[in-house]
Amino acid sequence: MMIDMVEMGRTARQASRELVKLTTAQKNKALLAIAAELERNAASILVENEGDVAAGREKGLSEALLDRLLLTEPRIASLAADVRRVADLPDPVGMEIMGRVLPNGLRLSKRRIPIGVIGVIYEARPNVTIDIAALCLKTGNAAILRGGSETWRSNLALVGVIQAALEQSLLPLGAVQIIGSPDRRYVAELLQLNRYVDMIIPRGGAGLHKLCKEQSTIPVITGGIGICHIFVDASADLERAVDIVENAKVQRPSVCNALDTVLVHRAAAAAFLPAMAVRLAQSKVELRAAGDALSILQANGHGACVQPAGPDDFDQEWLALILGVKVVDDLDEAIAHIQQHSTEHSDSILTQNWANANRFIAEINSAAVYVNASTRFTDGGQFGLGAEVAVSTEKLHARGPMGLEELTTYKWIGFGDGHIRE
Amino acid sequence: MMIDMVEMGRTARQASRELVKLTTAQKNKALLAIAAELERNAASILVENEGDVAAGREKGLSEALLDRLLLTEPRIASLAADVRRVADLPDPVGMEIMGRVLPNGLRLSKRRIPIGVIGVIYEARPNVTIDIAALCLKTGNAAILRGGSETWRSNLALVGVIQAALEQSLLPLGAVQIIGSPDRRYVAELLQLNRYVDMIIPRGGAGLHKLCKEQSTIPVITGGIGICHIFVDASADLERAVDIVENAKVQRPSVCNALDTVLVHRAAAAAFLPAMAVRLAQSKVELRAAGDALSILQANGHGACVQPAGPDDFDQEWLALILGVKVVDDLDEAIAHIQQHSTEHSDSILTQNWANANRFIAEINSAAVYVNASTRFTDGGQFGLGAEVAVSTEKLHARGPMGLEELTTYKWIGFGDGHIRE
Repeated sequence: MMIDMVEMGRTARQASRELVKLTTAQKNKALLAIAAELERNAASILVENEGDVAAGREKGLSEALLDRLLLTEPRIASLAADVRRVADLPDPVGMEIMGRVLPNGLRLSKRRIPIGVIGVIYEARPNVTIDIAALCLKTGNAAILRGGSETWRSNLALVGVIQAALEQSLLPLGAVQIIGSPDRRYVAELLQLNRYVDMIIPRGGAGLHKLCKEQSTIPVITGGIGICHIFVDASADLERAVDIVENAKVQRPSVCNALDTVLVHRAAAAAFLPAMAVRLAQSKVELRAAGDALSILQANGHGACVQPAGPDDFDQEWLALILGVKVVDDLDEAIAHIQQHSTEHSDSILTQNWANANRFIAEINSAAVYVNASTRFTDGGQFGLGAEVAVSTEKLHARGPMGLEELTTYKWIGFGDGHIRE
Repeated sequence: MMIDMVEMGRTARQASRELVKLTTAQKNKALLAIAAELERNAASILVENEGDVAAGREKGLSEALLDRLLLTEPRIASLAADVRRVADLPDPVGMEIMGRVLPNGLRLSKRRIPIGVIGVIYEARPNVTIDIAALCLKTGNAAILRGGSETWRSNLALVGVIQAALEQSLLPLGAVQIIGSPDRRYVAELLQLNRYVDMIIPRGGAGLHKLCKEQSTIPVITGGIGICHIFVDASADLERAVDIVENAKVQRPSVCNALDTVLVHRAAAAAFLPAMAVRLAQSKVELRAAGDALSILQANGHGACVQPAGPDDFDQEWLALILGVKVVDDLDEAIAHIQQHSTEHSDSILTQNWANANRFIAEINSAAVYVNASTRFTDGGQFGLGAEVAVSTEKLHARGPMGLEELTTYKWIGFGDGHIRE
């Protein structure tokens, strides 16, 4: 099948011009229709999903991956519940974030509006299709989706359901479109549609992000890749430090805010490292230790789960039960290490020293910087945003967890009464 | 001379890590030093500027362009005064724009921080060199500047003066660097330095913006190109409408917020157009009128300054005393015309009809939308921002006039006391 991407872009732009006119009540009604249609069509969605799972099994996907793409009745019910939750969230569109009467009497305000058309490129999980569609619709943005090839049929079925709900709600079908082919050339074409698409969100690995940065003529929000650090300072409460490192590494190792490297102040290393190793051994964490950290760990008989750190081990987002370990001489060395290796996602200092905490906060330029806390908190839900579109490591527009507000932009509105410029 | 752009990028990044540590007082002191050095070195700057002017005259630059690049003692004094004014502005860096204690006791805040390293590519006027350097320094950003070839020597002299002031103030020289060659390949290299540069601001024509969009792997803030519209609705106060159209077109035709096209409701056309033509004839404005507008203007004997609109005349940013004129049947046609032709910079509706004003505001997606006011207000000074870096027509990060705040980003800061995620 040939897809006319320009036509898809034009359709999305046209739909976005209709979406901008909708009230919050109209958008919420459409969201509730999507939730109802999901439940009503569960059986046919599951048939398509079975096809994806069978194809995935044939291709030799791991059980973990197969589970990620699997839909079940309860999972569809939970998707519908998510959409209803989005309907319940406050609508950022229309919010006036500044207002004043200028000295000349012109009334000036800044009002939040939809961004327009958002292209989202993602992998595997079919729930992203529903999540993103719901969040875009809530904020009045048209979406062009491009899911992973493993969930092809499921995604088409889900978007079919969304479009049925849009039709019932008298909303334009162009509000949520999916690129109905796994051919990668359509990704390349999407990235060049700057006339019709206002923002690209890639949700996937480093390769996808690099491709988008290099090829896109549309602003790209990259993120979701975290090489995260904890620095255990000389004055840290070492008992709590063990708890925090364990939490950051072990609680959910496959996510972007999980810990990748622990840096330990030389003065704390002999006491902290063996205690940490004992605790992490309970979860079978493999340590990749450099120089002095390696010696301390091996001297204390924790050699079993310790290996010497390889040359690239401090540039890894592990996404697994592996942890880089290094001893540093002082805060300066810790900051320099993080500046060199961090992806500016989430980094934390554990310290009782107020001056060191402040220096760390000021000089570590990550989207989220913590004092005496786990890196695992970088999350839209934890931060109270109500929803999470992505976790940005960009400098512009949005940093860290992006909620509904980050799917909006603003316009300046000037109300005059015949005002001319002097 | 060969320039090592990677080295320049690395130097800027290193400088930005020093700048982030500075207090507002330290940054202001450096700004005052720049102002003083400008005045102290006026004579040598003028010598270099004379060289640029002489070369420009030889190249056959117009008197208007030569005037733009000319520096004089009073102009240097005025530049120094501008820098002192930037020192007086409030510093957005360090401002906390959100703060709350989460249910688990973690204290979360969002703090404004510098963006990092900003690349600015601009044409002609040497005052931009000083302006941008001052605004970047005030916000703790390192700047890599690339000015127009016509102001080569002036720019090198100005950056020399800035660096002398930085040195006196014990600030890193890498805080303000200039690409010391007119060779365009360095622009291409700059646009690929995404490892070291966080934002590109092109200030120039459409060609430069297109180049940046296509080649840059760094987020680009384009703007400053305005195809601006005024729609004179049926209910508009026509006397005031003539004043506003005149102001928007004539007051300063060479700038981006000047009017390019006037759309007139059919019901107002016969009364409005001749009155407008008489007024604009006083300033020798040339009208490019389509269909019915042309007939009305010619029938009323205003044919002298009226021509039929050519096929591309409604896609022109005139930057001159020329105005596109078109009659539309209703608000729908006006909105559709603007959606098709606007660069989403500044557009205005003149009306006494509240519903129409609201529809225009909601459906016209420009950075600045006006009711009963001139488009000329889209300006950092007019909006009370205290400074203007650029006027963005982007959707992400910043729209419309960008002040100091728009040269910052933010980080999330989480203060815990041993907090781990449940």
